[in-house]
Amino acid sequence: MVHVAEGLSVPGTPVRFRLTVSCPDRVGIVAAVSGFLAGHGGSITEASQHCDPVTGWFFMRYEIDAGTLPFDADGLRHAFAPVAEAYGMHWQVTDASRPRRVVPLVSRQDHCLTDLLYRWRSQEMFLEIPCVISNHETMRDYVEWHGIPYYHVPVDPRHKTAAFERISSLVEEARADVVVLARYMQILPPEMCQRFAGRVINIHHSFLPSFVGARPYHKAFERGVKLIGATCHYVTDELDEGPIIEQDVVRVRHDHTVDELVRLGRDVERTVLSRGLRYHLEDRVLIHGNKTVVFS
Amino acid sequence: MVHVAEGLSVPGTPVRFRLTVSCPDRVGIVAAVSGFLAGHGGSITEASQHCDPVTGWFFMRYEIDAGTLPFDADGLRHAFAPVAEAYGMHWQVTDASRPRRVVPLVSRQDHCLTDLLYRWRSQEMFLEIPCVISNHETMRDYVEWHGIPYYHVPVDPRHKTAAFERISSLVEEARADVVVLARYMQILPPEMCQRFAGRVINIHHSFLPSFVGARPYHKAFERGVKLIGATCHYVTDELDEGPIIEQDVVRVRHDHTVDELVRLGRDVERTVLSRGLRYHLEDRVLIHGNKTVVFS
Amino acid sequence: MVHVAEGLSVPGTPVRFRLTVSCPDRVGIVAAVSGFLAGHGGSITEASQHCDPVTGWFFMRYEIDAGTLPFDADGLRHAFAPVAEAYGMHWQVTDASRPRRVVPLVSRQDHCLTDLLYRWRSQEMFLEIPCVISNHETMRDYVEWHGIPYYHVPVDPRHKTAAFERISSLVEEARADVVVLARYMQILPPEMCQRFAGRVINIHHSFLPSFVGARPYHKAFERGVKLIGATCHYVTDELDEGPIIEQDVVRVRHDHTVDELVRLGRDVERTVLSRGLRYHLEDRVLIHGNKTVVFS
Amino acid sequence: MVHVAEGLSVPGTPVRFRLTVSCPDRVGIVAAVSGFLAGHGGSITEASQHCDPVTGWFFMRYEIDAGTLPFDADGLRHAFAPVAEAYGMHWQVTDASRPRRVVPLVSRQDHCLTDLLYRWRSQEMFLEIPCVISNHETMRDYVEWHGIPYYHVPVDPRHKTAAFERISSLVEEARADVVVLARYMQILPPEMCQRFAGRVINIHHSFLPSFVGARPYHKAFERGVKLIGATCHYVTDELDEGPIIEQDVVRVRHDHTVDELVRLGRDVERTVLSRGLRYHLEDRVLIHGNKTVVFS
Repeated sequence: MVHVAEGLSVPGTPVRFRLTVSCPDRVGIVAAVSGFLAGHGGSITEASQHCDPVTGWFFMRYEIDAGTLPFDADGLRHAFAPVAEAYGMHWQVTDASRPRRVVPLVSRQDHCLTDLLYRWRSQEMFLEIPCVISNHETMRDYVEWHGIPYYHVPVDPRHKTAAFERISSLVEEARADVVVLARYMQILPPEMCQRFAGRVINIHHSFLPSFVGARPYHKAFERGVKLIGATCHYVTDELDEGPIIEQDVVRVRHDHTVDELVRLGRDVERTVLSRGLRYHLEDRVLIHGNKTVVFS
Repeated sequence: MVHVAEGLSVPGTPVRFRLTVSCPDRVGIVAAVSGFLAGHGGSITEASQHCDPVTGWFFMRYEIDAGTLPFDADGLRHAFAPVAEAYGMHWQVTDASRPRRVVPLVSRQDHCLTDLLYRWRSQEMFLEIPCVISNHETMRDYVEWHGIPYYHVPVDPRHKTAAFERISSLVEEARADVVVLARYMQILPPEMCQRFAGRVINIHHSFLPSFVGARPYHKAFERGVKLIGATCHYVTDELDEGPIIEQDVVRVRHDHTVDELVRLGRDVERTVLSRGLRYHLEDRVLIHGNKTVVFS
Repeated sequence: MVHVAEGLSVPGTPVRFRLTVSCPDRVGIVAAVSGFLAGHGGSITEASQHCDPVTGWFFMRYEIDAGTLPFDADGLRHAFAPVAEAYGMHWQVTDASRPRRVVPLVSRQDHCLTDLLYRWRSQEMFLEIPCVISNHETMRDYVEWHGIPYYHVPVDPRHKTAAFERISSLVEEARADVVVLARYMQILPPEMCQRFAGRVINIHHSFLPSFVGARPYHKAFERGVKLIGATCHYVTDELDEGPIIEQDVVRVRHDHTVDELVRLGRDVERTVLSRGLRYHLEDRVLIHGNKTVVFS
Repeated sequence: MVHVAEGLSVPGTPVRFRLTVSCPDRVGIVAAVSGFLAGHGGSITEASQHCDPVTGWFFMRYEIDAGTLPFDADGLRHAFAPVAEAYGMHWQVTDASRPRRVVPLVSRQDHCLTDLLYRWRSQEMFLEIPCVISNHETMRDYVEWHGIPYYHVPVDPRHKTAAFERISSLVEEARADVVVLARYMQILPPEMCQRFAGRVINIHHSFLPSFVGARPYHKAFERGVKLIGATCHYVTDELDEGPIIEQDVVRVRHDHTVDELVRLGRDVERTVLSRGLRYHLEDRVLIHGNKTVVFS
């Protein structure tokens, strides 16, 4: 059994604040933000910027050594608000030392969840898993061995609403920052997609927009493609159409059966999901329209 | 100016025959073919086989040291015919020392043609280019510097039939084994697709089946994919739906403009086309239904 | 807890024999082997061949539908022996329905072992794990949860011989077909390398021959390479110099710390190890001198 | 024949200044630089920063819309100098509308030069090629067709000094910003390496540090590696030990001969060289010690 104390930062991790900003581009944004920070002695340890020439929109992510600032996170938010106001920013400040709370939803396939649990257990990824929710009992023993509560919520096709209300409640009770559909073979209802907009991450087992919907490996086999892939994206109420965070592919040959595509795909799926989730957890993903800026 | 003597084999290249076979699978095919060759002293220098469990179809490609056989290519065809008959084979014997005649069709974009000419000029790829056909004059000087005739056949939208009849005639006169659409921005009419079925190779500038049709890089940019690709396939009368020979992708980021996708895509296109064409020229591609077996 | 019945084939898996051959090349080998099989009604389901023009050596791997032959594996060995004799073959026949017995050796790093256990547990890889041996207690709980015995054999620098004798005994008692050094941070003594020659597989955390020996990620960081990699190879008594089975790389940037190289490297290591081990378990690797033929 | 007017900017290209900075890290650098620019109304169109925690060194690259500043490049240099002084910066301002002057050195192998000429001719890469220098006559016709002077400077092993003095003079006369060793099979003398330090780019045909020196494909074949690669790096007086700019690899198999490794390698070489050179020409590479920061 594994125990990571809930709600506490990992000792020894240097405390950082992360500031993300998006706003219409104009002269002086960088100077305003960096000037504000320098004025308080703040040391920027990582900086990324992007200006989209098509939409004229500006995006920025700073990581700041919290020890160099005279604020806690709330103090920083309070002090920064006027700057943000002046430039019409969408912005957030997060405390990198607070692990995000991630609730995985799974069905019977366990490769993505196993991978996620491994990365959590080994502290490779910095997160908390308050619970796992599944429409099957398959993964209960393995999850519970990790000391993580496991909720079995069957999804009866005739009573889907009730099932997803139950799931939404569990997610709320768990105070989840993120829901991960770790090969969860159910389609979330639109109201749930909207309620948790920008907070539900799916791994789709194809290189989108190829092979939307069910059985993508079968479709890939039928079409005779020479690469198969996986796509990590935010869930919206249009199936497999949400903003893409990460994708990757693997080469296949004429002598691979559908089963072998499935096997090869599993490795891509778990890799792509873990990369996409890491970007999200580290506040590296800024959604804009149906696209993402990923400061990887 | 460059000159490669037409119709002659490259001196020093060891002479090989290539035998490709496809037929319903049953016990004894390999023994029958390899026994036939061994009975004549034939040394197999390269062998590939595949049995498709879904269709029950068998595929095979042998490269044979021609010097170990008491036949020329026609003699081998004659001697092998009864074996092929007995197993209901689709088959062909080719003489690897005879370069295939490849006719590129191009529009204004020159990266694929430039690459192909380089691989021909440097003898990296073993082929002849009897002529180049284009609906623009753009590439004339460069092509003619290589000593290759250049035919300008404008494609007037009101008189497409006449244009493609002219092109078909030029292809026939050139005794082309293969037509390569090297970013030729015109859609071939169905009758031309059928007339040269299995002999027209296209490079499509997307990872099919994503982004069929025109302006795939723009569509990829709009969708926000994280990889873009290219697909080399045989042309059929369904646009971008023919059997796929080869595909590849390259990673892109949020800060790549459409122009940069186009630039990055060019490198993938020329690489994928050259690999796909090489496989075809070396008789490594066996078409079956709408899929390919590629003994790469 | 997980249980896979030991020594039994997985029901529903079609029974196959695998025949691998290496010998000096000459005319008629393929005909002799395929003729022998056809003569007994044997259906070849997968065939790979290679002739090395440098050494003049021939390599072959057949997968045969066992149900089409009138033999069990021993019967096939007996019947085939005269053919093998006639051509001076190194050869073996294996029964693909018998899982190989794999003994992992690990230290404190658990990513490769976790991955291997997952692939075993999910029946993605067909093998048995009679026990795990480690010089640390770190992984005991996790391994034992799987119902697999765990042996802690500390390696005291002053008494290495005793430790490795104990390990060799455990390996023998486990009737291991393969020993996997799954990031085992000890160097095996030469006598152990020789005793289990061709049966010990290591994962080295660099793209060999770059960065032989200890701390390759630190060396990679120092040198400023733009890709890091991993190498799966057979262990010989020359450190990191054995025949390579599989390699892969991942892109790194100037802003990756050594710790991040280690993290990125873990994913490559486990992928490369699992691919290399799969090839070995499926008899796809033929060792020749210090190189391998891999019929992947 | 192709003509690109020398010394003129490409019409329609928006004029940009590029500012690169490296200095010891401390609080306020970003604010100082961005504040300076904002104070003059300068619009930053691209920004990259990196702080190396090991050396405590800070790196920065800004692209600035020149039209938003009241300066030409020299004016910007003059105005920025006090800021740079205050922080002890190594820095430069370049005018992105002025093409860099690139002199390729080649021997007989033409794939890298052909690729470079294509990218120049098609305006994919923004540079001038005042001349090509070679120790062979092989490429004269092709280069001269492009309207580029070709200098044949044989390198007699007994009179190397004279040859390299001649080459250095030609490079100086051509007012070259960069020398590209495009598979130039001669080792530059130390004095030439020092004289043009940070301005000579080589493409080495292996994945360094594997296979330093001559005949890397033969060495790779001997070792039986499963990937081969290429490395673009700055030339220093230690052979193949200079700062690496870019690397890539391609998968190879047991059935690839040395000649096929050479063929596959050519595609990697030209791709890696063109990427590395592009980064250099766009001032994306900052050398620090024997490593590079590449803001790609």
